[in-house]
Formats: sequence, structure tokens, C-alpha cells
Amino acid sequence: MSKSAGFCQGCLHYVFDYETPKTLVIPNIRLGFAFRFTQFLVVLYVVGYVCVVQKAYQVTDSVISSVTTKVKGFALTNASDMDPRLWDVADYVIPPQGDHSVFVMTNMVVTPEQTQSRCAELPSPSTTCTDDCDCREGYSDPRGSGIQTGLCVNYSLTVQTCEVLSWCPLEIDTELPQRAQLAAAENFTMLIKNSITYPMFKFYRRNILPHVNSSYLKRCKFSRATDPDCPIFRLKDIVSEAGEDFQDMAVKGGVLGIIIDWSCDLDWWAGKCYPKYSFRRLDNKHPDNNVAPGYNFRFAKYYKAPDGEETRTLIKAYGIRFDIIVFGTAGKFGIVPTIVNLGAALSFLSLVPVVSDWFMLTCTRKRDLYGKLKATYMAEDTVAEDVSMGTSYGTQ
Amino acid sequence: MSKSAGFCQGCLHYVFDYETPKTLVIPNIRLGFAFRFTQFLVVLYVVGYVCVVQKAYQVTDSVISSVTTKVKGFALTNASDMDPRLWDVADYVIPPQGDHSVFVMTNMVVTPEQTQSRCAELPSPSTTCTDDCDCREGYSDPRGSGIQTGLCVNYSLTVQTCEVLSWCPLEIDTELPQRAQLAAAENFTMLIKNSITYPMFKFYRRNILPHVNSSYLKRCKFSRATDPDCPIFRLKDIVSEAGEDFQDMAVKGGVLGIIIDWSCDLDWWAGKCYPKYSFRRLDNKHPDNNVAPGYNFRFAKYYKAPDGEETRTLIKAYGIRFDIIVFGTAGKFGIVPTIVNLGAALSFLSLVPVVSDWFMLTCTRKRDLYGKLKATYMAEDTVAEDVSMGTSYGTQ
Amino acid sequence: MSKSAGFCQGCLHYVFDYETPKTLVIPNIRLGFAFRFTQFLVVLYVVGYVCVVQKAYQVTDSVISSVTTKVKGFALTNASDMDPRLWDVADYVIPPQGDHSVFVMTNMVVTPEQTQSRCAELPSPSTTCTDDCDCREGYSDPRGSGIQTGLCVNYSLTVQTCEVLSWCPLEIDTELPQRAQLAAAENFTMLIKNSITYPMFKFYRRNILPHVNSSYLKRCKFSRATDPDCPIFRLKDIVSEAGEDFQDMAVKGGVLGIIIDWSCDLDWWAGKCYPKYSFRRLDNKHPDNNVAPGYNFRFAKYYKAPDGEETRTLIKAYGIRFDIIVFGTAGKFGIVPTIVNLGAALSFLSLVPVVSDWFMLTCTRKRDLYGKLKATYMAEDTVAEDVSMGTSYGTQ
Repeated sequence: MSKSAGFCQGCLHYVFDYETPKTLVIPNIRLGFAFRFTQFLVVLYVVGYVCVVQKAYQVTDSVISSVTTKVKGFALTNASDMDPRLWDVADYVIPPQGDHSVFVMTNMVVTPEQTQSRCAELPSPSTTCTDDCDCREGYSDPRGSGIQTGLCVNYSLTVQTCEVLSWCPLEIDTELPQRAQLAAAENFTMLIKNSITYPMFKFYRRNILPHVNSSYLKRCKFSRATDPDCPIFRLKDIVSEAGEDFQDMAVKGGVLGIIIDWSCDLDWWAGKCYPKYSFRRLDNKHPDNNVAPGYNFRFAKYYKAPDGEETRTLIKAYGIRFDIIVFGTAGKFGIVPTIVNLGAALSFLSLVPVVSDWFMLTCTRKRDLYGKLKATYMAEDTVAEDVSMGTSYGTQ
Repeated sequence: MSKSAGFCQGCLHYVFDYETPKTLVIPNIRLGFAFRFTQFLVVLYVVGYVCVVQKAYQVTDSVISSVTTKVKGFALTNASDMDPRLWDVADYVIPPQGDHSVFVMTNMVVTPEQTQSRCAELPSPSTTCTDDCDCREGYSDPRGSGIQTGLCVNYSLTVQTCEVLSWCPLEIDTELPQRAQLAAAENFTMLIKNSITYPMFKFYRRNILPHVNSSYLKRCKFSRATDPDCPIFRLKDIVSEAGEDFQDMAVKGGVLGIIIDWSCDLDWWAGKCYPKYSFRRLDNKHPDNNVAPGYNFRFAKYYKAPDGEETRTLIKAYGIRFDIIVFGTAGKFGIVPTIVNLGAALSFLSLVPVVSDWFMLTCTRKRDLYGKLKATYMAEDTVAEDVSMGTSYGTQ
Repeated sequence: MSKSAGFCQGCLHYVFDYETPKTLVIPNIRLGFAFRFTQFLVVLYVVGYVCVVQKAYQVTDSVISSVTTKVKGFALTNASDMDPRLWDVADYVIPPQGDHSVFVMTNMVVTPEQTQSRCAELPSPSTTCTDDCDCREGYSDPRGSGIQTGLCVNYSLTVQTCEVLSWCPLEIDTELPQRAQLAAAENFTMLIKNSITYPMFKFYRRNILPHVNSSYLKRCKFSRATDPDCPIFRLKDIVSEAGEDFQDMAVKGGVLGIIIDWSCDLDWWAGKCYPKYSFRRLDNKHPDNNVAPGYNFRFAKYYKAPDGEETRTLIKAYGIRFDIIVFGTAGKFGIVPTIVNLGAALSFLSLVPVVSDWFMLTCTRKRDLYGKLKATYMAEDTVAEDVSMGTSYGTQ
């Protein structure tokens, strides 16, 4: 046998010799039971909590969604200073497109016939004046209404204010009607069409469920108790579900979240994947620290007079913005999270002998015997030759 | 040696004595091979599946995106009841801002010259009447067109209906043109500019790739085969890619998703991170259970007549809403998921000896010999003094 | 004892006998120290990196957010070709609703008094003509302005171009003012109200923090140094923070991201969960390969002349779109990720003996002694009967 061949064989032995731990079998039923019971507890945890409760064996994906909405209804306003006027969808839904955010105007301050001209600023401590010297030409007060011309003019018989270049007459938004002008908006209905996708699982679904037919959709209204699958919502019902009063909210406006939860377990029958609706007011109702409470914005309709002059009707629109928020996570069995979580659990199984050994060596009656049999204590002063006889059973 | 010093030394021994399992080396090449092969399988799984296929060693982050769009094109309508009219971007894109949702009007029902006045309701079973008693003053039918005045008036020579206060004349939306009026919209083009960020990795990218130059952008059109990097899309091509017919969809409208997938592996050359476009119709095409199929909404242009009376042109706009949906997950090597997944795999390595031992003790020829050598069976009735002689090699 | 009872007892023994590895205790303090030190390193890693730095023991949830915005401010334009004109919110914020994307117009090309009629196309190589034959009736050049009528008409005294049917007069957008017309927009302020939810943790929060009171909100302006909690932003400050020059950006427009990061650790005092603002330009500033640099779109205001003819004012609006991007991940202690990560770390603890054994068997002085005591080498040619004497201490 050459030297290199011997080396190779040595290597081979090193790689392919099988090394297995020597063990001591102790026929102690209490000890064995404690050991198996601890193993059982770990397995119970893995199956019970990780798999059943937390579904840690699943891969998850987030929802991608598309929403269209359509509001229906009429309201008649009959304010003392205006003709009776009918409001339909094209009038009160701004902007008109129904996507995931829909604004329904419920109250307003209208300032018609505004033109680019000069007029007296609204009276306030910083705008009242007694003389042209109190006004600064070209000055633009951020809380004011326009650019000062430098003149001091009569606002009313008793008050003089600085003149401004602005859209005149100025808007007086302090006189907001205390009962919402479009109070009838509580009976408007909103149809929400929502399609979702879980791209990782190629899963598509709509909120109009397969068993919902056309005639049902023509007459249904969402109700958690009786019609939980109807995608048509009465505005008052939505606001009530969010714990608010519609008429209260309609005066100053607000933002209301329609939250659609598509969380699904796609491992079991996928048909069980239904949308769950919930409703929550998203702005603060009675804030201590709020500027501009509620929700409003200004927009204008522009007209051209026959002489070519541009006039506009400025509308400060108060209303409820419905934000349709779609979220959800779908889970499906995946080999990687399963392996990872199983692996973690198996790690705990490898802890069990440590615990059992501790129990054996401290709490059993025969602990000294077990300890002596289990562990061989090597004295540090052992002479090397003494040792050889204790090894290699086969060559004795 | 004092007692406490002895106790300390005992502690020290307890902590720093090294306890190692005693093992039995079996020079059986088949056994060794089975052992190594099982180890190899586990390592193969870790490397092959977890790392290469699932990239479980990466931390992931979700995309943050900004989209601007710009539509270009003209269309001429030449309906019998209207003058020829040219439609440009400002006319058919509503709202005009190009963000992640763009509506292109393709068909419409126009009701010009509406004023707040009274007119006969459209005939339907619930609105026809023979007498004023059939109509209820102030009643607002949710399916009607306004607030009833309580009168019964002639709708046509043969039909009488309840009079309503509304924007008159009423819209008759049953006569939707069966060929889309802006059929030419199929040749419109849409430029999509999309910048994305993965904030965790401080990674920024645009869908206009670095190698795309300005002159190419002036003439290119997206085509999966020839121009996959061109961010300019012909509307008809988008709709075709989604498996739909443009002219078909243009009549009643719909929602079309332009899905941009930015999923990236940032570990390798980041320049390979390209957007992948796909197209899918998001609303239902031929639904059994659909109210308001397609996609439409009403909006109005308001005018003021010289006498100050407000008139409006109501437009029920049908068209295609293009929703640009950007999603993606970027992954990059992360120490935590690497550790977690390695740990899980190592747990499986610790299972290998269990499997190998089972194989050794049941399937090998010399299983009894191996079993006897490996496991020391302690009889329960052993007397304690007998045992002492079998321990502590060094002190024999 | 019957046979089946014996079999049962065998099974019972098999299940409940406790099998523990036999070990060798080596009182070598260097070895023991190396072992404990390696264990310590692994524990240090788990506690230090996984738990403290990466918080791998937490379950995480993504933010759901609602945004409302309100812009305030005035600007006066005084172009030579126009009357002085004051611009307020209703004029320059398009669309007027303040949601998560707000466009503030800063520059514009206005083309008033457009009507549906015929006029000479703007001169370009493809539209100039010398004769009617150069023009094709009904042809619509995608880069042109309308549908050609087939006539060649005078554009100016020296140039003839094809006549088109279009909104005339045509827009000439090459003469964009090089100083933004609404340069004063830099002093506009934007109030951002942002409410967020982590649905998994039922955690709600607003960007107007509890300690911020109403009077502070009336006068504050966001400043990273002095007012980091003020939700009112001066437009110029935002743009500066993003590293851009407002007046520069105002000329051609752009998209600016206001990024609100709500990343939170909900395990510690939740009141510490504050929004972090950052600002970034989202479109490309000086791109080599850009079509339509900046951000602009066209919209029109429609008027009706007394004779019923529709005219419009076309506005090509340049401006800054502020995209409010809310993101964040909240983490909270969760038992599953804790177990998974602990498990993974424990797996590494089980690697420690392997490393220590390798150290013991290769690097210590007494490695041969240790090796002989630890491993029993079974010679392949051992005769079975020789073995029996070495087993079962108890029965000797």
C-alpha cells in the first residue's frame, strides 16, 4: 500500500465513517414521561399556535384594488335668499368622476357675481382704517382677501377698511347655515364597485358577489343585519355606522372612511373570500386643536358677461368626502415559511433533552447513579498510557 | 483550602468544564454514505430552493411611486343632430390633470340648455298619470328626475306624466349611440411618466430608462415585441393587450388597469431593474349581475344667460378610465432573514442523525451489534455500588 | 406473562425509556472557556442584532392613511397683455379638492376666445404648403392642432399653412413666460391634515399632535429646526428642502413629493409615534431624455356667447403638483416572529459544540487523548461475541 493511497483511504474513512453519539437508556418511566410530555408540548405549540392561530405556514400578498362609485339622489334647496333649486348628481358631486374618493356637497356659502375689481376689505383689527396712511399699497395680508390698493374706504356706514383688489364682492363665510342646505343628502345612495387582485396568487374578485343578481341590486340597500352583501349604501347609514350623526356632520363637513377588508385565507375554499365593510370618521370631530374643522374647499364657476367681462360664482363647499380604503392580505400555503417555522419549532425540540437531563440530574432519586453513568469525568492528571485500555472495544 | 474557595472552584468547574458527547465511530461505508447523502439533500434544499428560487435571504421593501400622464390626439364628431366638432385633450380628458387615473371620454349623451324649471317626467309605470291626484307634491322618486310638483301634464300627445321641478329638459339617456362618438380615440396616445422609490434601499428609478433618448421618445409607441421600453401607449393597443375590443368598450365605457410591476432583485446589477407592463380590464365585461355596466358619470358645464339665468349643458360621459397601478417588491440581501432561514435549515441538519440512527438500527445487517455498542441499557435493579467501577477512567 | 402483554410492555419501554447521550467531561479551562465564549457570542448576536437593531421579534403592519390639504394665499399677475388680475385659491388650485395630490398653478399660456372654426395651422415643416394639393382633407396629424380641411391658407404675410378645423385661434405655447406669472406662489401655505391607522394594532394618530393648540396653528410655519410639528408648510420652504429652487421649478412645473413617514415602534410608549416629513422632487429636473419636461396640462373654461355659440378659454397650466405620500410600518412584539427568530438563534447554539469539538480535537495539546476518550472506534472485523462484555453495566 503506497503512502498516498493510504492517505486517501484515511480521508475516505474520515468522510464516510459514521459517528453516532453513545447513549444511556434509563428505564425510568417517570423520566421518560417527562421527556415525551415536553416534546408533546412543543409539538402542540407548533401545531396549535403557529399553524392554526397565526397561519405562519402561509406566504402572504397585499391587495391591489380598483374602485368605481356612483351616487344617486336629489335635493331641493329653498333658502329665503334664493329661488327653489334642485340639486342633482352633476351639481353636488365634485369632481364628478366616481373613484376611490367621492365628495358629496351638503352645505355651502355661495358668493355670486364676483368680478375682478376693488372693494372694501372685510372688517378685522388689521384691516380697519381711518385714513389712507393705514393701508399699504401692494400689501397682501395672508389672512386678508386681496392686494391692498392703499385707499381707506367705507365698508359700511360706521366702519372704514382698506380697499383691496380682489374678486368682489368678497365672500362672507361666517354666515354658514346651521342646518345643512342639502340635508336631504342623507337619503342619497352610493354604489361601490370594487375589483381586487392578489397578483401573487392570480386571484381576482369583485365586491358584487356571484350570488347577487341584477334585480336584487336594483332594490337593495346595505345593512349589516339583513343585506351584508349589497354594495349600495345609504349615506345616512354609513355615517351612523361610523358613530356619527349625519345632519351634524353635514353642516361643517368631514371625511368618512369606507374601509373594505379583503383579508382572505386562500388555502381553504376560496369562495369564502368576502369583503368586510367597516366605517370610520377619519377627521377629528371635536378637536381641541383644530384649524378649519370639518372639510371644505372653494371652487368657482366662471361666466363671461356679454361685454366680455369674466364673472364667477365662488362656492365654498362643505361636505362629506367618502374615502374608500381597500386593504387586505391573502395567505396561501408556502413551502418557505412552512420550513422556516418548522425549523424554528424543531430547534425547540432540540432543547427538550437539555431540560430533561437537568431534571434527571437534579430531581430524581437516583441522580448520582445517573450522573455517574452518563458523564465520564476525566481527571486532568490522567497519564496518557492509562487511557488506551479504555477505548476501542473491538481491538481489546 | 477554605470551604468557600472550594465551592467557588466547584462553580468554576461546573461552568468551564467542557462536556462533550461520547461517540461511536462505525467504519461502515454504506452507513456513512447514507448519512452524508441526507446531509447533502438538506444543504441542496437550502441552497437550491430557499436561496435561489425563493430568495429567502433578502429583506424586502414595497414600492412608492409617482405617476404623471399625458394624453394626445384629436377626434371629430359629426353626429346628425350637431355641427361637426373637434375634440381635443381639454375636451375629453376629465379631470384634466394627468395622474394615476385618467378618464378618456369616448361616448356621451349631451343634454344642452337645461334650466331650473318644470317639465313632464320621463314616462315609466310609476310616473304616468291620468290626473293630478296620481302625483304627490314634494315627492322625490329615487328613480325619477326631480321633485314632483303635484301636477299631471302632457309628456307627449298620448302620454301624461307627473310634472317635476328639475333641470329641464330632462336627460334621455336611453338613446346612447351604438357606435362610440369619439371612436377615433383608439389612436390617442398616452405618455406615462412613473418614478419609483424603494425607501429602505434608497433606490430611485424612472420608467423612462437611461438608454432611451429624446428623439426616440418623439416617435416611439409601446409594443411588447419591438418597443418594450417606450412609455407612450396607443389606447387601442392597451385595450387589445387586455384582451378587449376598443370600439366595443368605448360604447359603454370601462375601467382598464395599466399595471406596472417594479419587482426587482437589487443584489445583482441594479440596472436590471426594469418596469414590466401588463394590462387588464378591471370591471366586468359581460356580467350577469351588473347594475350600470361599463363606466360613466355625469358632469355639467354651467353658463349664465344674458338675463342672469343659469343654464347648463349636462353630459353623461361614457369612457375608459385608465388606472395606473404600480406595485412591486424589491429584495436585497439582509442578515436577519439569512440567519433565520439558515437557522431553520440547520435545524433540519440536526434531524439527519436521528434519521441515520434509525436506518442503522433497523436496516443494517449488524444492527444488534451497533445497537449494543451505541446504547448502554441500564437495568432498573442495578445496585448503586456495582456501578462505581464503570466510571472515571482516569482514576481506575 | 402472556405474549401480547409482553409486546405491550416492550412498546411502553420503547416509548418511555429515557435515552440520554453519554458525555465526557473534560476539566480543561481553556476548552471550557472557548465553548462558553462561543455560546456567549451567539447569544450576544441574538440579543444585540436581531432583537435590538432589527427588532425581529415584532409583527409589523402597514399604514392606512387619509389626507386633506388646504392651500392659502394670493397672487397678482400684471402681464403687459392682460389687466391686473388677482388669483385666489379657487383660481390656481386645480382640481379644487384638497386630497393627497394638490396642483398649484404657477405659470400658464392662456388662449382666450377659442371657437370651433377653421384657421391656418401653426407653421412647421409638415404643415407649410404652397397649394391646396399639399393638404389632405380629413387628415389629422398627431403633432398638429386639428383636422385638415384640404385648403392652403395664409398663416402670416409670408407663410402659408394648411387650414384645420379646430378650436381657433390656435394655442401658441412656445411663448411660455420665462418668469413664472404666479411667482408669488412661493409664499402660499399648505395645511396638511393626515390621519393614520394601523388596523392590526387598532392604533390611530393624526399629524396634528395632542400638544399643538389652536393658537399655535394659526401662526406657525413648518421649520425643521424650530417648528418640526407644525403641519403648515410654506411652498418655497418645501421646495428648498427638496434641494430645488422654487422660481426655477415654477416656470415649467414639476412634481414634488411630501413624504410622511409614520414608522413606529409601538412596544414602547406609543406617544412617541410622530410623523417625519421629508421632501423630494419626483420628476426629473434636467433630464437628457425627457419629453415634456416639467408638469403641465391643458384645461378649458367654457362660455356661451349670447348667440348660443360655445367659446372657451384654453389654459395650458404649468405648476407644481404636491404628492403627499404617506408610508410607514409599525412593529409590535409578536410571539410568532419571536419564536421563529429565537428558534433560528438556538439552531446556531447547537452548532457551538461542533465548533468546540473541532477545536478540541485539532488544537489542544492532549488532542489524541481526548479523541480516544470521546470516540470509540469500532473495528469492522470485530466478532460479535467479543462485544457483549462491554455493554450493560448493570448486568455484568
